[in-house]
This record gives sequence, structure tokens and C-alpha cells, in this order.
Amino acid sequence: MSAAAKIEVGVLGATGVVGQHFVALLAEHPWFRLAWLGASERSGGKRYGELPWRLAAPLPGDAARLEVKTPDPDEAPKIVFSALDASVAGEVEKEFASNGHIVLSNARNYRMDALVPLLIPEINADHLDALALQKKRKGWSGAMVANPNCSTIFLAMALAALREFEPERVMVTTLQALSGAGHPGVSSLDATGNVIPFIAGEEEKIENETRKILGEFRGEEFESAKIGISAQATRVPVVNGHTEAVSVGFRKGVKTEEILAAFERFSGKPQAKKLPSAPVRPIVYLDGADRPQPRIDVERFGGMAVQVGRLRECPVMGHKFVLLGHNTIRGAAGAAVLNAELMRAEGLLN
Amino acid sequence: MSAAAKIEVGVLGATGVVGQHFVALLAEHPWFRLAWLGASERSGGKRYGELPWRLAAPLPGDAARLEVKTPDPDEAPKIVFSALDASVAGEVEKEFASNGHIVLSNARNYRMDALVPLLIPEINADHLDALALQKKRKGWSGAMVANPNCSTIFLAMALAALREFEPERVMVTTLQALSGAGHPGVSSLDATGNVIPFIAGEEEKIENETRKILGEFRGEEFESAKIGISAQATRVPVVNGHTEAVSVGFRKGVKTEEILAAFERFSGKPQAKKLPSAPVRPIVYLDGADRPQPRIDVERFGGMAVQVGRLRECPVMGHKFVLLGHNTIRGAAGAAVLNAELMRAEGLLN
Amino acid sequence: MSAAAKIEVGVLGATGVVGQHFVALLAEHPWFRLAWLGASERSGGKRYGELPWRLAAPLPGDAARLEVKTPDPDEAPKIVFSALDASVAGEVEKEFASNGHIVLSNARNYRMDALVPLLIPEINADHLDALALQKKRKGWSGAMVANPNCSTIFLAMALAALREFEPERVMVTTLQALSGAGHPGVSSLDATGNVIPFIAGEEEKIENETRKILGEFRGEEFESAKIGISAQATRVPVVNGHTEAVSVGFRKGVKTEEILAAFERFSGKPQAKKLPSAPVRPIVYLDGADRPQPRIDVERFGGMAVQVGRLRECPVMGHKFVLLGHNTIRGAAGAAVLNAELMRAEGLLN
Amino acid sequence: MSAAAKIEVGVLGATGVVGQHFVALLAEHPWFRLAWLGASERSGGKRYGELPWRLAAPLPGDAARLEVKTPDPDEAPKIVFSALDASVAGEVEKEFASNGHIVLSNARNYRMDALVPLLIPEINADHLDALALQKKRKGWSGAMVANPNCSTIFLAMALAALREFEPERVMVTTLQALSGAGHPGVSSLDATGNVIPFIAGEEEKIENETRKILGEFRGEEFESAKIGISAQATRVPVVNGHTEAVSVGFRKGVKTEEILAAFERFSGKPQAKKLPSAPVRPIVYLDGADRPQPRIDVERFGGMAVQVGRLRECPVMGHKFVLLGHNTIRGAAGAAVLNAELMRAEGLLN
Repeated sequence: MSAAAKIEVGVLGATGVVGQHFVALLAEHPWFRLAWLGASERSGGKRYGELPWRLAAPLPGDAARLEVKTPDPDEAPKIVFSALDASVAGEVEKEFASNGHIVLSNARNYRMDALVPLLIPEINADHLDALALQKKRKGWSGAMVANPNCSTIFLAMALAALREFEPERVMVTTLQALSGAGHPGVSSLDATGNVIPFIAGEEEKIENETRKILGEFRGEEFESAKIGISAQATRVPVVNGHTEAVSVGFRKGVKTEEILAAFERFSGKPQAKKLPSAPVRPIVYLDGADRPQPRIDVERFGGMAVQVGRLRECPVMGHKFVLLGHNTIRGAAGAAVLNAELMRAEGLLN
Repeated sequence: MSAAAKIEVGVLGATGVVGQHFVALLAEHPWFRLAWLGASERSGGKRYGELPWRLAAPLPGDAARLEVKTPDPDEAPKIVFSALDASVAGEVEKEFASNGHIVLSNARNYRMDALVPLLIPEINADHLDALALQKKRKGWSGAMVANPNCSTIFLAMALAALREFEPERVMVTTLQALSGAGHPGVSSLDATGNVIPFIAGEEEKIENETRKILGEFRGEEFESAKIGISAQATRVPVVNGHTEAVSVGFRKGVKTEEILAAFERFSGKPQAKKLPSAPVRPIVYLDGADRPQPRIDVERFGGMAVQVGRLRECPVMGHKFVLLGHNTIRGAAGAAVLNAELMRAEGLLN
Repeated sequence: MSAAAKIEVGVLGATGVVGQHFVALLAEHPWFRLAWLGASERSGGKRYGELPWRLAAPLPGDAARLEVKTPDPDEAPKIVFSALDASVAGEVEKEFASNGHIVLSNARNYRMDALVPLLIPEINADHLDALALQKKRKGWSGAMVANPNCSTIFLAMALAALREFEPERVMVTTLQALSGAGHPGVSSLDATGNVIPFIAGEEEKIENETRKILGEFRGEEFESAKIGISAQATRVPVVNGHTEAVSVGFRKGVKTEEILAAFERFSGKPQAKKLPSAPVRPIVYLDGADRPQPRIDVERFGGMAVQVGRLRECPVMGHKFVLLGHNTIRGAAGAAVLNAELMRAEGLLN
Repeated sequence: MSAAAKIEVGVLGATGVVGQHFVALLAEHPWFRLAWLGASERSGGKRYGELPWRLAAPLPGDAARLEVKTPDPDEAPKIVFSALDASVAGEVEKEFASNGHIVLSNARNYRMDALVPLLIPEINADHLDALALQKKRKGWSGAMVANPNCSTIFLAMALAALREFEPERVMVTTLQALSGAGHPGVSSLDATGNVIPFIAGEEEKIENETRKILGEFRGEEFESAKIGISAQATRVPVVNGHTEAVSVGFRKGVKTEEILAAFERFSGKPQAKKLPSAPVRPIVYLDGADRPQPRIDVERFGGMAVQVGRLRECPVMGHKFVLLGHNTIRGAAGAAVLNAELMRAEGLLN
């Protein structure tokens, strides 16, 4: 696609950690051209390159030259990725959606909204069918599609791969990275050499969002999947990469080899349509007895695949395994970009 | 007790991390006097003070002056604490027990032995009844009592407090400290900013040892408790303190307040007999929403209490909570010392 | 001293990390009784025990019951320790000093004031002579005494011990702990697995304050010592304890053994007068080839001694060595408490 | 260059951290083809892919299929990179050099040898002139070229850029990464939340090697540069990237802007000849007040440039600044590969 033919997009909340990941992922995007950066009044008017950049990847030159704007829908392109904090996302994202913008939101505010698809393209691409009803009921000239919470995405991917065996009960303990809390986020005095066994709202998100994602859109409403899910969320001194220790009980009898095979053949629309950000395989199984490990493995596959290891029987319910996902890429900015790619492939960005 | 009246004790494997904790705990012990330090040939013959000391607490002067001996039963006092590595503990501990010594073992080798009590004084003091049979069947002139694996002790304490509600199924994910692997143990290149989702043999120990501890000695054999236990063990970059995220399903209906009350009133023989190393309360419940945390909380109560927090209902099975224990104190050296104190109080050290 | 006879003291800025160390140090103090806690409006009116407590040492019960007050000089005791942030200390501390209070300040605001003693009791107890002139010139009914910046204190102690050899030039690189920045302070995303080679204002403080401390009060003014000092300050992922790599060139020829002997015999008024918080020896030399180390050594000697190691000749100038100090104790709260103890011993708290 | 035309090379000590970096750097090399992997008896006979791989970059498939050989000169290609540990490098490298191999050594053993060039291609390419004399005097049919110690390389690069101002005295404190000690290297119990103020032999290497590198080969011998250098080396909990705080006194008067300009225009043969591994600019100056930082900056420029920041006047001697280098790339494997590239460009690999 020629540069001229690329679709202009904007990023709301461009100065935080997730916003910076949006900028990095969109810099060389084959379909989208980053044309607009919105942030709070405090940063408004500055060049993006003047603000602190915290990723190891270099700040793309084109983005550095953009002026950071206040979040005014009239000035932004039609397609807008939102990395806004939940404290402001509710109002701002609604303003954009009701003013003709297609909002790809990473905030928690509308995820459980009865009219907003909570999209993971490999799993529930058909949830986009809800957008027609969203338009009608909300009266929005634009649209809103949310991506789930980071820990939820990785768990939902693993469960979706095992859908045929009918997961019934899920126990998950998360060991989440510091970047999940943004910058400055967690104080170094709390993080260093420590585990914080609590992340506000996280366990409820994992439990509720996962059921919505794995559920069905029945023409008029989302029906959540009938799965019992219990999450315990902890913060550990890791920079990037959420690890999750998962046990799943299935309604159907299933052998370890069958689960392994299901992980390995799992694939969805992003793979079928070869979306630019789609990992070749959404789930990669690692054979090493002590893998996946966040510091070593998290950057593999462009941060877009979920890595699973240590699959074995669980003495209490079904099977257990460990998974790892990149929380700021597949768990946030990359998830929203993949959502936009799916929407374009489905003709929903026009 | 006057110094002269104290019981002489020795430490096998005195140079490792757990061995050093034994030395620290015994330095000012009101009942025991550290009189003998055994280690491998490599350290044999040196003064203990010449060897590297890795604890923050200072090396006790009396211990520093002791000469480190090779592990010869003929030279050691009757009571011997063993911090030997499992690779050598099997043979050496047996040699000591069969030569008249009472061995308080921290190694894994004899924990699941059908004739060795796997003792936590608050829980199964009556398992010491097996010693008579041990003597008879093993033909040992001495005796052997093992303390469980560190993660097991903390979990077993919590479950013992809830025995009246009949725990049926337990899911536990551990986030274990680096000191649990000894020194040098885990390479800093593997530990820094990372999670290692595997600790060899740990999950099996937690699953099997817990059932033996909570089971009964029936005159001729130990009968394990009928509890389904599933453990996932991980290593996190924390110096001291194992955190465990636990879910328990009970046979009996139980309310959150009842569990809380059971934690708070839990007590056992060490408390009743006011053993010197016994914590006033073996389980301490912390109200803070984000506690317990290893770096902040682990040294409290002399490292001998299990700290519990975040008790709440589990959507999948019963209740869930987080616990923290000091892996090298209550989880190792302190456990064995408390075992010896109970044995003395029961007249079993004569 | 009976509890009734103790001198009532207060703490300004009681809710931060240094404020909490003041509370911990004063809890069992033999001369002082903590009677008043001041903090910003935000915390005003709450019980101290309701606020987050971040030290590993338990919150003292008496302090927990105190109500936190807004910083009103009329309600506070005469003796006030200040852990206020520099952004507010300038005004508030002056208000207290001009209203009859003796302020022991840990803030940077008045440290280089021509009329404020920058006190380290082992070094420049005679700088207290400036208080009479301070009263006259400032027109304050109270008084103000400052303690130096944390890194400065440790360096100044080492240099004071070597005064007889006439230090002429000093190069120092600091590796400073996270707690030096308070809570929340440094973001965990910046600290984890990283070195930040910059701490705002720190190098200038070390260079200027050290000269004032080692200088003389000449009746009408402080004359700084004639020493060239160059500091490079870095932040490292350590919780407590600033390490400093120091090289010193002397005007007089000196041998390594002489320096070692000077460190070991260094002593001052706190030792002579046996002040309650005085370490037996202000400088402790460690023989280990790889010591001092912050995680292992920092809590020794109540955090009040400077630990020195690795003394050897420097190929460029004189000698070099490594030192370690506890930044929130000897480098902050403990420094101010020792200052107050010296003032009481000198009859200056009446 | 076609694959067929590539020069076959081998790696001695292929299983350690530096050895793995050699394999990663050589995998896609335009001039060299990795054809042989040597390691100790223990790994001999296994496929390289069966051994633990510890880099975040994936193990190259071609290397994975190679069989690991015992270090026999008869089987290895002519060009051999050596990542051997110093304990064995002395003998093995000599055996290879005396049997016709060109050895590019990363070990310390021959660095200060009067006949071995200690090569940094940007600085002392002419030291390769010593190879003729080396052949004659040593009687080797092959040759040996060493790269310096990691910390030395970064410091020497900065000093070489400033040669025109005639550096006279240098003070440097290093904050070195854990990967510098290899795997397992530093115990996580020693590294976590700690600073170890000692690295065996490191300070001497920095002081002596730097002088040799910056000196001249005078036909019959190396004459070291007349610079006084004093190093203090510390280990900090950083994975990759050595930070150095440097002060330099010059014989000539020089302004800050002149030093800055000298850093920015510094260039050498690798840049002139566009060697494949050469960074476009060997020294990159960062403007940020708190840069360079290892976790954020170390991977930039392929790990082959030295990053410098915080240049300012030093109150004691000349100027001071902070530098950062990638210890396992530019400081080890990448250094040796660049050395080999220079040798090929100079026709010395035939």
C-alpha cells in the first residue's frame, strides 16, 4: 500500500507507556499512518519528541515531529486508538465515538458494556456484529471496540484453544509485570525484591471479561460463557510479561496430548486473513521444563503470541499449565492494533 | 537454665544457608548449646568464623570459634540438626540415627518414610508416637524426625487451622524466594527481573507431604489425609519469604468470618507449652488489602508465624487467600529447632 | 530518666519515609518522648496508625494512637524534628524557628545558610557556637540546626577521620539506594535492573556541604575547608544503603596503615558523652575483600556507623576506599536525633 | 558474498554466555560462516541445540544443528574465536595459534603479552603490525589477537576520542552488569538489591590494558601510554550494560564543547572501511540529563557503540562524564568479531 493510500489514525493518551507502544507499533504499519497524537492539556502543544520516551525501541522520527494535541474530536482522524487512563477514558472515548470516530479502546470503561464488543480477533471476530446495534441504541455516529485487560487476553486465548473440550472451571494465579501499572506506576520501594499480592480490580476483570469474550453475541445481547473462573493477581518485579499459572477443569474428558495438539493448531481470522500484526501462531508451546520465562521469552514473536509451557495433569481439576504474554503489546497496544486490522479486513473502517 | 545444664547439640551441613540459620537460632537458645559443627571434607578443620557468613545477623562469637568437623557420629553430640543437602543426607543422617543420635532433619530424604514423623508441632505432635515403631523396625539406636519442605509447612499450617471445616480440595501457586535454593543456588542471570515457573520436585513435595502431615499415625502406619492438592511452584526475585496464593474447597459449608476466626484462634502444643521458639500465634491475619508482602513482612514474629491476608470467597471452590512464610526460618532451621523443643518438652531427648 | 522527665518532641513531615524513621527511632528513646506529629493538610486529623506504614520495624503503638496535626507552631512541642520536603521546608521550618522552636532539620533549605550549623556531632560540634549569632541576626526566638545530605554525611565522616593527613582533593562516585528518594520516589520501571546516572542537586550538595562541615566557625561566619571535591551520583536498585567509591589525595604523605589506624580510632563527642544514638565507633572497617555490601551490612550498628572497606593506594591520587552508610538512619533521621542528643548534652535544649 | 565464498570460522568455548553471543553474531554474518563449535569434554558430542540457550535472541537454526566438538586444532577451521574461560584459555589458545590457527581471543591470558596486539579497531589498528614479530618470536604458524576486557574497551574508546587533548589522569568507577560474570556467575542471593564493591582482577585490567591500547607499537615492542589510571569496580543488579563514571584530567586546556565535538566526530578504520559490525559512530552522545541508562539504552546501535552522557567540568580534574557499553557485545563477542573483520579487510586472514 502506498503511503498516500494508508489510513490516517490517531492515538489518544499518547504519552503513557501504552501510548508509546501504540506509536512504536504504528510507525511502520503497512495499512495505517500515524497522523495525530492526543494527550492531556499538560503535554498539549509540545512536539512528541520533546516528551520523555521510555521504550527500548527508538522513538520513530515521524512521530517525534508531530505536535501533541488536546483531545478534540474535530481535529482527530476518524480512526483513533485510545490508551487513555480509565479516569478520563469514559467521557473522552464516548465523545469521540458519538462524533463519528471509530475508537479502539484499551481502557476498562466500556469493556463490559452490553453494546461494546470485547474483541480478540482469534476468538470472537463475530462479536463485531454488535456494532450495528451499538450504533442504533447508543445513537453514536462512530463506533467503539474494546480490547480486554492484559491478563484476560492471555487466559482467554488459552481457553479458546481448548473450547472443544468445554472448559468448566478455571483457577488462575497471575504474576504481573511492573509495566502493567504504567509510569510512574508502582514505586520502586514497593517493587524491589518483593511481591505485592493485590492489583486493584484485576481479579474481577479476569473473571468477568473472559466470560464475555468466550460467550456469544445473540443478535440483541452478549451471553457470557458458562465458565467458573477464579483469579488471584500478584505484582512481581519483572519489567514486561505477565506469567499465569492456570488450572482448567473440562466438561469433556481430554488427554494431555489432545490439549497440546489443540494449543498448536489454534488459529483464527488474523491468521487466515494474514493481518499484518497477527502472529503466525497465536499460541506457542515451549518444551523447556522451566519455560516460558518473562525476561527471556517475552519479546519473541513480536510480543503478539501467547507462550505456554509445563502442561500436565492437575490432581484437583483437569490440567494445569503456565502461560506468558507481553502485557503492553499483545495485552494492550498490539491488541487494539490487531482489532483495527480485523475491522479493516472486514470493511468496518470505511 | 544455666549454661552448664543446657543440652549440647550439633549441626550437620553447617556451612550452607540453612546451616547458618541453625547457628544463628541456636546461638542464644535457652535450652540448647551449640557444641559441634559438621560439614563436608572441604571445610573440615577450619574455624567456623573463617568461612563465608551470609546472614544479615552477625555471626555469633561462640560459633565462630568452633572448629568445623567432618561428619563423624562418634564425635557429635546426641542431638543433631541436619541441614545437609539431599544428595548426601540419605546416607549421613541414617548413619547418625543408627549410631544413637537424634537427628532433626531438614532434608527431603526421609520425609515420606513410613516410619519417620513429618512434624509440625502445632499440627501433628502425636506423630511422634511413631518413634517407638521406628526404633523397632529400623533397628536404630537413635531416632529421626523430619520437618517438611518450606512451602509445605506454610500451607499445612493454614489448612490445619481450617481442619474443622474439612478441606477437600486445595489449589496453590507458590512464589518462592531465592534463598530457598541456597547459595549460590539460582544464578542472578536467571533471577533478575524474571520469574522461573519451575522448581524441581517442589510441587510433588507440597502435594504429598501436606497429606502426610494432616493425616494420622494409626499405631502401625501413617494414613494420609484425604485432600486433593494441586501445586504450581514458581521462583521470583525475592530474597526471603515464600508467598502462596491458595484456594480451598471444604466439605462443610463455612463463612468467611468463620475461617477468619479459625485462623486467629489456631494454636497448638508449642503455644500451650510455651516452647522457646514458638510464635505467640502461629497464624497472623493481616488486614491490609495488599498484604502480606515478603520484603516488608517476612521478618516479623521472628520469622516463625505464617502471615495470611486477602481472605475472600473463591468463585470456583470455597475460599481463597494469600499466605507468606519465612522459608529459611519457619520453613527450615526454625522448624527443626521447634521440633527439638517439642521433643524435649515431651521427654524424648533423653 | 523517668517517662515524665523525658523531653517532649514533635516530628514535622511525619508521614514520609524519613518521618517514619523518626517515629521509629524516637519510640523507645531514653531522653525524648514523641508527643506530636505534624503533616500536610491531607493527613491532618487522622490517627497516625491509619496511615500507610512502610518500615519493616513495627509501627510503635504510642505513635499509632497520636492524631496527625497540621503544622501549627502553637500546638507543637519546643523541640521539633523536620522531615519536611524541601518544597515546603523553607517556609514552615522558618515559621517554627521564629516562634521559639528548636528545629532539627533534615531538609536541604537551610544547610548552606551562613547562620545555620550543618552538624555532624563527631566532626563539628563546635559549629553550634553559631547559634548565638543565628538568634541575633535572624531574630528568631528559637533555633535551627541542619543535618547534611545523606551521601555527604558518610563522606564527611571518612574525611574527618583523616583530617590529620590534610585531604586536598576528593573524587567520589555514589551508588545510592532507592529509599533516598522517598516514597513513591523512583518509579519501579526506572529502577528495575537499571542504573540512573543522575540525582538532581546531589553532586552539588556533596561538594558544598562537605566543605562547610569540615570547615570552621570563626565567630562571625563559617569558613569552608579548602578541599577540592568532585562527585558523580548514581541511583542503583538497592533498598537501603548508599555505597560510595572514594579517592582522596592528601597534602601530607601517609601510609595505608596510618589511614586504617585513623579510621579505627576515629571518635568524637557522641562517643565521649555516650549519647544514646551514638555508635560505639563511628567508622567500622571491614576486612572482607568484597565488603561493605548494602543488603548484607547496612542494618549493622543500628544503621549509625559508616562502614569502610577496600582501602588501598590510588594510582592517581593518594588512597581509595569504599564506604557504606544507612541513608535513612545515619543519613537522615538518625543524624537529626544525634544532633538533638548533642544539643541536650551541651545544655542547648533548654 | 555468496554463502560458498564465506570464510569458515569456529568458536571455542561456545556454550557460555559470550560463546552464545559469538554464535548469535556470526549466524547472519556477511563474511563469516560458523562451521565449528568447540567446548569442554562435558558438552562434546551433543548437538548445540540440545544445550541450554540463554539469550533473548533465538538460537540460529544452523548453529543448533552443529555438533559440539572437543577443542582439537586439527578439526577446527583456520579462524577461531575464543570465549574460553581464563582457566583453560592459556593452554588451548596457544595450542591453536601454534597449529596454524588465527585466534581471536576474548580471554585475559594473552592480553598483556608483549607480542599480542590488544586490539580495538577504531583505536590501534596499527598494533596488528606486531603480528609479524609475534610469528617470529613465538614460532607460531598461526596468530593471536586479543580484545580487551569489557570495561576497558568502553573507557579506552572514550579516551581515544580525546587523545588530541592528551589525557593525563583518569579516575573511573564502574557499575558492571551481571552478565559480565557469565552463567551461573554471580549468585542471585549476592546480587539482588545489592552492590558488590569488588570484581577480582578487574581494576588492574582497566588500569593496565587501557595504557597498552592507547600506547604505540614501536617495531619491537608495545610502549604503554603515559596516563595515570585509577579504577574502582563494582557489580550492580543489571543484566547487560556496564556504566562507568569517569573523570579525566588533560595535559592541554580544553573546553566542554571541544570534548563534545571530539566525541561526536570520533571515527576509525571500521567506519572508514565500513566493516559489517562497525557502528556508524563508535561514540554516541546522549543529551538527556539522566542518560545513558543500561536497561533502556544498552541494546541500541546493535550493542556496538559506546554511549556517553552528562559531560561537564570536574572540580578536581578536567572533565567528567558517564559512559555505557554492552559488555557481552562490544565488550566481548562483538569486539572479537570486529577485530576479525578488520583483519580480513587488511588481508590478514589469508
